[in-house]
Amino acid sequence: MAVRAGGHNQAAMNGPKEKVLTLDTMNACVKRVEYAVRGPIVLRALELEQELRQGVKKPFTEVIRANIGDAHAMGQKPITFLRQVLALCVHPDLLNSPDFPEDAKRRAESILQACGGHSLGAYSNSSGIQPIREHVAQYIQRRDGGIPADPNNIFLSTGASDAIVTVLKLLVAGEGRGRTGVLIPIPQYPLYSAALAELNAVQVDYYLDEDRAWALDVAELRRALCQARGHCCPRALCIINPGNPTGARPPSPPQNLIRFGERLFLMSDEVYQDNVYAEGSQFHSFKKVLMEMGPPYSTQQELASFHSISKGYMGECGLRGGYVEVVNMDPAVQQQMQKLMSVRLCPPLPGQAVLDMVVSPPEPSDPSFTQFQAEKQAVLANLAAKAKLTEQVFNEVPGIRCNPVQGAMYSFPRIELPPRAIQRAK
Amino acid sequence: MAVRAGGHNQAAMNGPKEKVLTLDTMNACVKRVEYAVRGPIVLRALELEQELRQGVKKPFTEVIRANIGDAHAMGQKPITFLRQVLALCVHPDLLNSPDFPEDAKRRAESILQACGGHSLGAYSNSSGIQPIREHVAQYIQRRDGGIPADPNNIFLSTGASDAIVTVLKLLVAGEGRGRTGVLIPIPQYPLYSAALAELNAVQVDYYLDEDRAWALDVAELRRALCQARGHCCPRALCIINPGNPTGARPPSPPQNLIRFGERLFLMSDEVYQDNVYAEGSQFHSFKKVLMEMGPPYSTQQELASFHSISKGYMGECGLRGGYVEVVNMDPAVQQQMQKLMSVRLCPPLPGQAVLDMVVSPPEPSDPSFTQFQAEKQAVLANLAAKAKLTEQVFNEVPGIRCNPVQGAMYSFPRIELPPRAIQRAK
Repeated sequence: MAVRAGGHNQAAMNGPKEKVLTLDTMNACVKRVEYAVRGPIVLRALELEQELRQGVKKPFTEVIRANIGDAHAMGQKPITFLRQVLALCVHPDLLNSPDFPEDAKRRAESILQACGGHSLGAYSNSSGIQPIREHVAQYIQRRDGGIPADPNNIFLSTGASDAIVTVLKLLVAGEGRGRTGVLIPIPQYPLYSAALAELNAVQVDYYLDEDRAWALDVAELRRALCQARGHCCPRALCIINPGNPTGARPPSPPQNLIRFGERLFLMSDEVYQDNVYAEGSQFHSFKKVLMEMGPPYSTQQELASFHSISKGYMGECGLRGGYVEVVNMDPAVQQQMQKLMSVRLCPPLPGQAVLDMVVSPPEPSDPSFTQFQAEKQAVLANLAAKAKLTEQVFNEVPGIRCNPVQGAMYSFPRIELPPRAIQRAK
Repeated sequence: MAVRAGGHNQAAMNGPKEKVLTLDTMNACVKRVEYAVRGPIVLRALELEQELRQGVKKPFTEVIRANIGDAHAMGQKPITFLRQVLALCVHPDLLNSPDFPEDAKRRAESILQACGGHSLGAYSNSSGIQPIREHVAQYIQRRDGGIPADPNNIFLSTGASDAIVTVLKLLVAGEGRGRTGVLIPIPQYPLYSAALAELNAVQVDYYLDEDRAWALDVAELRRALCQARGHCCPRALCIINPGNPTGARPPSPPQNLIRFGERLFLMSDEVYQDNVYAEGSQFHSFKKVLMEMGPPYSTQQELASFHSISKGYMGECGLRGGYVEVVNMDPAVQQQMQKLMSVRLCPPLPGQAVLDMVVSPPEPSDPSFTQFQAEKQAVLANLAAKAKLTEQVFNEVPGIRCNPVQGAMYSFPRIELPPRAIQRAK
């Protein structure tokens, strides 16, 4: 009866001796996963913080964590309307309170109406609360100048990460040289490399051009694709639009990318769609570009586009809300995706509720409109000013060069080490 | 440059023609996943509901969904204290309101204190907010009669499902006959079969004994293990304690199970630990049993035990909160688990906040104590009465036999079709 990791038997029955699960016997794909956002630099920062607390003298007094886009942790205040409605949903007794505006109450009531037992504590459908999916579709349609969106193609998720991993999971297949390859930008957001390692897919790097403000070049995509073909089967192209962590503006013109990607499944990470700072630059969703190109692109090109409540002006990372819109996906595959999502039951309802407000904010005639707009614009203006400041400060430091931060929430400076420092390190 | 799923080239460059992602080219493991909880019966129920709404005459007027343990959807009211504190955390302006008890305010303040920027909108550590992990450890220690629990072995999760899948992911390895096998009970909660299919691990069924109130028998475990050895490498044993969907009481005596499992990684799904109805029966965690057995079990046997805020008296499914405690896990593997969890950033903060209250409820000296206890006991008494009622009603119907519902939230009746019905169906 005794069995251990290696599968061999042991006659002695005197209790467990060796671990079943060790570095040698565990999932090798998981071992290969790297995740720098929470890796050794973060661990070192934690040590430094602890030393400072213990009174150890340092040439600095504070550690500022810039490893992750976490606006509230950096002092950004939540948008009042979002939190009012969420509080009303969580504790409906407050619907009788005079301290909440009437449109917040109406909104909370309509969200609760769509929940099982009128409670955020019930499971929702696996793809999310139906009226919220409809509001997302209406939001996309407005954003994209009237190009229709179908609520049945919208799946709410636990932050964008969850949806990105789900789509990658569908794409993974094959063995050896037939393994799925996925083109991702370098520098990248490490969710992509981590998920691909875990799923045993092949990461195909394409490099953004630092000398041209991290521009995405079709020639470079072509190089990456050609080189990859020898050792895997490239099937998907991920684009982060605007760029994380480069702060690059949306790629232009995007039509070329779509033409390039016409035999690939397109994944467009658009969680920074509200964060475009470059003058004269504007966010265009890949869905919109695709649709405007007409057939066969608009009718055939497969696309998954991701959004979240964690960035933009909301910064509600901790609530874990987001969605994916799939376009031109094979209906049978879409059913499989729905099934796969149902295994995890449903995305957290507070995140779904806040997503509802983000895609369907107060209208000009609503009592909360003015405050909502003022808070939203103040956050976005503040982020834009910080983007400018970051670029300036970096470029004033000898040995550091930094591209303009044109979008998203990051800068990716280049640090030139002086020859003597390199000498010393050697 | 043109590449399609099969990897072959196409000279013509006139737009996408075939789908990259089809049933033939997608992840075959995902295709094999089955998930009955949201499968064909649920889809048929949705159809019936729609027909009823459209006025189609049926021999019934209502569809009652009994496919999932979703207490709030069935009319159970949330526990006031949990929702008060959560509302205060979501919208801290309410901390000035006279309508909230003082202990709810104190609790909300201490939770916010532990959040980045004092906001539920910030990411937490990937393993959860540190003081909440500590409260979970204290809860486990109290529950297990003083046996210590280490907060570093506690990982908060997005419901229990998330943590279960994470642990299974670590265990998956090998090829062909060396593939990881995982013993799961039949009848089971279909998360297990679904996750194993997705991860390409081998599901090893052991059957619970319907004639003995769905008892778990070591001889049957042994049969399952021996049979499995020919075609896989069994490495883990899952136990659902109390039983889902059988409603079975906790297994007794559990020491035999642990002795049986001494060369296996034990996974104990204990999300129904508050839901034990059988007279004279009591929940004992596997952690407690293991520790009381002394060395080498207490020092060597690997165990992961799961809990959640979705069941018990809370029923807060929609908030997706839970945790796993790992015991005797190889420290290097535990680091890998932490890394894996960090890729998904963090569990939703509202779920973490409510977990904090569940593991650390109001004390007798707190203003909310009386109401909290009254609400909790009312829910548990109601669930116990329903368990009894379900058993009675089923057993009054000719052709249906049902075991006593001794725990969890389910009954698993046997329906004997009359010979004439079978004849007719043929």
